[in-house]
Amino acid sequence: MSLLGIDLGTSGVRVAAYDLAGGEIAAASAGTTLHRPAPGLAELDAEEVMAAVIRLCAEVTASAPVRADPVESLSFAVLGEAVLPVDGAGKALAPAPVSMDRRGETTAACLADVLGNRVVQEITGQPLHPMFAVHKISASAQWPVAAQYQSLGEYVAGQLGARPAVDLTMAARTGAFDVQRRQWSPDILDALGVNATTLAEVVSAGTVVGAVSTEAAAWTGVRAGTPIIAGLHDQAASFVGGGGRAATSCVVSFGSSDCLTVGTASRPIGLDGTGFASYPVRENLWVTLAGTAAGGWALTWLADLVRATGQEWEALYDVSAQAPPGLLVMPYFAGSGTLDNDPDARAAVLGLTLETSRSDLARAFLEASGFEIAKIADALARSGVPPTQAYAVGGGARSVSALQVRADAAGIPLTGVAANASTRGAAMVAGLGIGAFGTVTDVPLPPVGFRAEPRHEHTSWYAAQRATFAATYQTLRPVNQALAAL
Amino acid sequence: MSLLGIDLGTSGVRVAAYDLAGGEIAAASAGTTLHRPAPGLAELDAEEVMAAVIRLCAEVTASAPVRADPVESLSFAVLGEAVLPVDGAGKALAPAPVSMDRRGETTAACLADVLGNRVVQEITGQPLHPMFAVHKISASAQWPVAAQYQSLGEYVAGQLGARPAVDLTMAARTGAFDVQRRQWSPDILDALGVNATTLAEVVSAGTVVGAVSTEAAAWTGVRAGTPIIAGLHDQAASFVGGGGRAATSCVVSFGSSDCLTVGTASRPIGLDGTGFASYPVRENLWVTLAGTAAGGWALTWLADLVRATGQEWEALYDVSAQAPPGLLVMPYFAGSGTLDNDPDARAAVLGLTLETSRSDLARAFLEASGFEIAKIADALARSGVPPTQAYAVGGGARSVSALQVRADAAGIPLTGVAANASTRGAAMVAGLGIGAFGTVTDVPLPPVGFRAEPRHEHTSWYAAQRATFAATYQTLRPVNQALAAL
Repeated sequence: MSLLGIDLGTSGVRVAAYDLAGGEIAAASAGTTLHRPAPGLAELDAEEVMAAVIRLCAEVTASAPVRADPVESLSFAVLGEAVLPVDGAGKALAPAPVSMDRRGETTAACLADVLGNRVVQEITGQPLHPMFAVHKISASAQWPVAAQYQSLGEYVAGQLGARPAVDLTMAARTGAFDVQRRQWSPDILDALGVNATTLAEVVSAGTVVGAVSTEAAAWTGVRAGTPIIAGLHDQAASFVGGGGRAATSCVVSFGSSDCLTVGTASRPIGLDGTGFASYPVRENLWVTLAGTAAGGWALTWLADLVRATGQEWEALYDVSAQAPPGLLVMPYFAGSGTLDNDPDARAAVLGLTLETSRSDLARAFLEASGFEIAKIADALARSGVPPTQAYAVGGGARSVSALQVRADAAGIPLTGVAANASTRGAAMVAGLGIGAFGTVTDVPLPPVGFRAEPRHEHTSWYAAQRATFAATYQTLRPVNQALAAL
Repeated sequence: MSLLGIDLGTSGVRVAAYDLAGGEIAAASAGTTLHRPAPGLAELDAEEVMAAVIRLCAEVTASAPVRADPVESLSFAVLGEAVLPVDGAGKALAPAPVSMDRRGETTAACLADVLGNRVVQEITGQPLHPMFAVHKISASAQWPVAAQYQSLGEYVAGQLGARPAVDLTMAARTGAFDVQRRQWSPDILDALGVNATTLAEVVSAGTVVGAVSTEAAAWTGVRAGTPIIAGLHDQAASFVGGGGRAATSCVVSFGSSDCLTVGTASRPIGLDGTGFASYPVRENLWVTLAGTAAGGWALTWLADLVRATGQEWEALYDVSAQAPPGLLVMPYFAGSGTLDNDPDARAAVLGLTLETSRSDLARAFLEASGFEIAKIADALARSGVPPTQAYAVGGGARSVSALQVRADAAGIPLTGVAANASTRGAAMVAGLGIGAFGTVTDVPLPPVGFRAEPRHEHTSWYAAQRATFAATYQTLRPVNQALAAL
C-alpha cells in the first residue's frame, strides 16, 4: 500500500506517493499561473489547479512503483489564506486570491477598529493581518452569491468526492476561527458581515471526509472508494513531514520565505502582542511559527542583480562558505515578515568596501537568513516556547554550504531533510486517516542529509554579529520610515 | 606659441599643449604601473614615470598643431603626497609611495601624541593624516641616505633641467609646511626627526625654476632653453584649469574620488577641527577642499558587481535619470573621506525591495555622489567659505545624465567642463610663468558643456533625501564601529 500527498502551492502543485516507512516512491510536479488582473490582486484559477492535480495524480499512479503498491488514501498540504466562492454543486465561481493579494486591507483595518488587535490575536491565535481569507470574503462584493467559501484544499477534495470540511489549521488561517473554542468566531464574523453558514464544517487533519468517486478514479488513476483525508496548512504539513514533533524537534523551512515552526502539546501562553501565529493541528499538537517575508526571494534577487547563472550561483555559495565577510544584510526585501510585522521595513546591505566581492555578498545574504532564524528562536524562547533540535526543509536546505553558513549564523545546528516536507506531510496525514500511524509521533521521521553544526572557529564572531543584526533593525527604523514617507 | 601641461597622476601621465586662448591643441596620455610590493605599500617607479613623460612630450611636440605653434613654457600638475629620496645628482634612490600607501601610520600617530591634531591643523592647514609625505620620510629607515626628498613634480622638472624647487601647494601636501608663515615647520620636522636641509626651496606656482636642457630637448622635442615653471598639486591645478576663481566659482571634481574645491583671497578662519584642507596657491589665492574617498571607484565597483559593460553602464545612467528610486547609498567604500575623516565608515545600500533594479542602483550611487557634494558645500558654508557657482570636471562629469542626477541630488547647478582640468591648469600656470597671463583671474575660462540645473519637479524630494543622507551617517556609526571591531 502507498499514501498519496497532494501539495497545493502558490506557484504550483506537487503530487507524490510514499510507502509506510515514509519513503517517497514516485512524484510529479507542475507550475500553475499566478494571475495579476489588477494592481494589488494576485489569484490562482481553481480549474487550472484542479487540472494539474488530475494530470499529476494520473502520472504518479501510472508509475511502476505505485502500480505495484496502490494508493490506499490521499490527503493535502494547502497554501494558506487563499479562498474562493463555490456554488451548491461545489463549482468554483471565481479565482482564489493568494496571500499576497491585498483586497482585504480595508476590512482588516475595520476589524482592528471594532475588536482591536489584541482581542483578534487572542481569538484566532494570530496577529491581525489583511492576508487572511475572512477579509477577502468580506471585501469581495463583486463575487457571485456563494453557497460556501472554500480553500483550494476543500475545493480539490470536493472534486475528488469529499464532503466540504476544513481542518483546524486551514480554519485557523482564515482569520475567523476561535482556536481555543474550536469554532468559527461569531464576534469576528459579525464584525465583518460574514455568515457562518457559508463556511465549512471544521475537522481535525486526518479525518476521513469522503472517498474517491468513480468519475475521479477515471481521471486520476486512484481506485474508486479510496479514502480522502482532511489535510492541513502547508507550514503545518512541512512540520509533520519534516520531522517536527511537539517538545522534541522544530522545523526550519527555507523556501521563497524562511519560517521557523515549533510544536507544543497545548496552546502556548505569552504570545499576546508578538508576531507569532499559533494554531491547533490535532489533539495534543499545536504549532507556533514566524517567518521572514523574503528568504529565497532575496537570494534570487541578488543572483539576478549580479547575473549569476544557477551553476555559478552554487559555486558562489561554496566559495562564500569559507569565512565571514564582515558585511551585514538586513533581509527585509518584502517588509519585515511576521515577527515585527513592519510593512515599512526595507532591506539593506551594510559594511561594503571596494574589496567586497560577489561571493562576500552571497554569503552575507545567507547569513541574514540565519540571523533571522536566530532572532525568531530567541523570541520563541522569551515567549516560553523554546525551539528544540531543528530539521531544515525546503529548497534552500539542499545546498550543503548554504546550510552550513545559515547554521553558523544562526548558532543552531540544522539537520537537512532529504525530502519534500510538505508533500510528505500530506501523505503522512493520509496515513493517520486510515490508522497506518496512531498519532503524529508515530509518523516515520524523514530521511536526513547533511547535519550542519555551527563551526567552533566562528562562534564568537557570529554571536557579536547576531547582536549587531538585532540592534540594526531598530537603528534603521527611522531611516526606513523616512524612505517610506518619500 | 603654445603652453605645455604635464599631469603626473596615480594611474598615469597626461601631456597636452594649449593655445593662449586656453584651447587644447594636442594631447597624449599613458598609464603607469602602481606597484604593491607588500600589504599596505603602493608605489610608483620614478624612472617609469619619467620615461612616460619623455615619450608623451615627444608625441605632442611632433604633432602638426604644436609644430606650427611651438611650446613656449611648460609646467606640472602633480599627484599629492608621493615623495621619493634622490641623490645629489637628482637621481631617484627608491620608488615613490602614493597617497594610499600606509607606511606613515605610526609616525602620524606619534605626531598626534607630540603636537596634537589641533596644532598640526593650525600649522599645516590640513587635518593630520598618515598619507602625508613627511610621515613616509620619517618612517622610511630602509631608504638610502638622501640628499633631498622630492615629489614627482620636482623630480621630473629636475630631469628636464630645473633646479629643485617645490611650490606652495605641494609643500603644503607634505604635511610639514607652515602655511601661514610659508616656511617648513621646525616643530613638525623636529618631532619627526626630519632635517629641513633635505627639503626643497619653496616657491609659488608660476615661478620660473629652470630651462629645458639640451639633453632633455633632444628627448622631448621641446626647444632647449624653454622655461620650466613650478607647477602645483593636482587638485589646485584642476581648480585653476577648471574655471575656479576666488569668490567667484568653485570646482567639483568627479574622478576616482569626488572633491569640492573653493578659492578665497586669504586663509579662511573657522576650519579648526573640520576635515577641510586649506593651503595657499599664490598671492591672494588659497584653496580649501574636501572629498569623498570613493566616487568613481564606487561606480566601478557597482558596474563590476552587476557585470555591466561600458556601453550598457551608460545606458543604465540614461534610464536611471528618469525618477528618484527611493534608495539611499552611503558611499563610504574607502572610509568617509576627508570631511568626517572616519576610517571606520563603510558603504551601505538602504531601502532595497524585491523590485529594486540595476538601474535604480546606478541612480542611487550617482545620487550619493551628489548628496556628498551637498554635505561638503553645507559644511563649507557653516565654516564661512560658502561655495559659489560650480564647474564640474573629471571623467564623471562627461555623462550628461550622470551630471544631471548629481545636480538634482546636490541641489546645486553643475556646469560641465569640456576639458581635462588638471592638465589644462598645469599649462595655464606655464602661461603665468612667462607672463602670458597676469594672475589666475586672467587665465581664460575653460570650454563648458552641459549645464545641469536641479530639476524643479524633484526639489522637495531631494531636500528630504539629503536630510536623511546626512542623518544616516550618524545613525550608522555604531553599526560601522561594530563591523570594524569584528
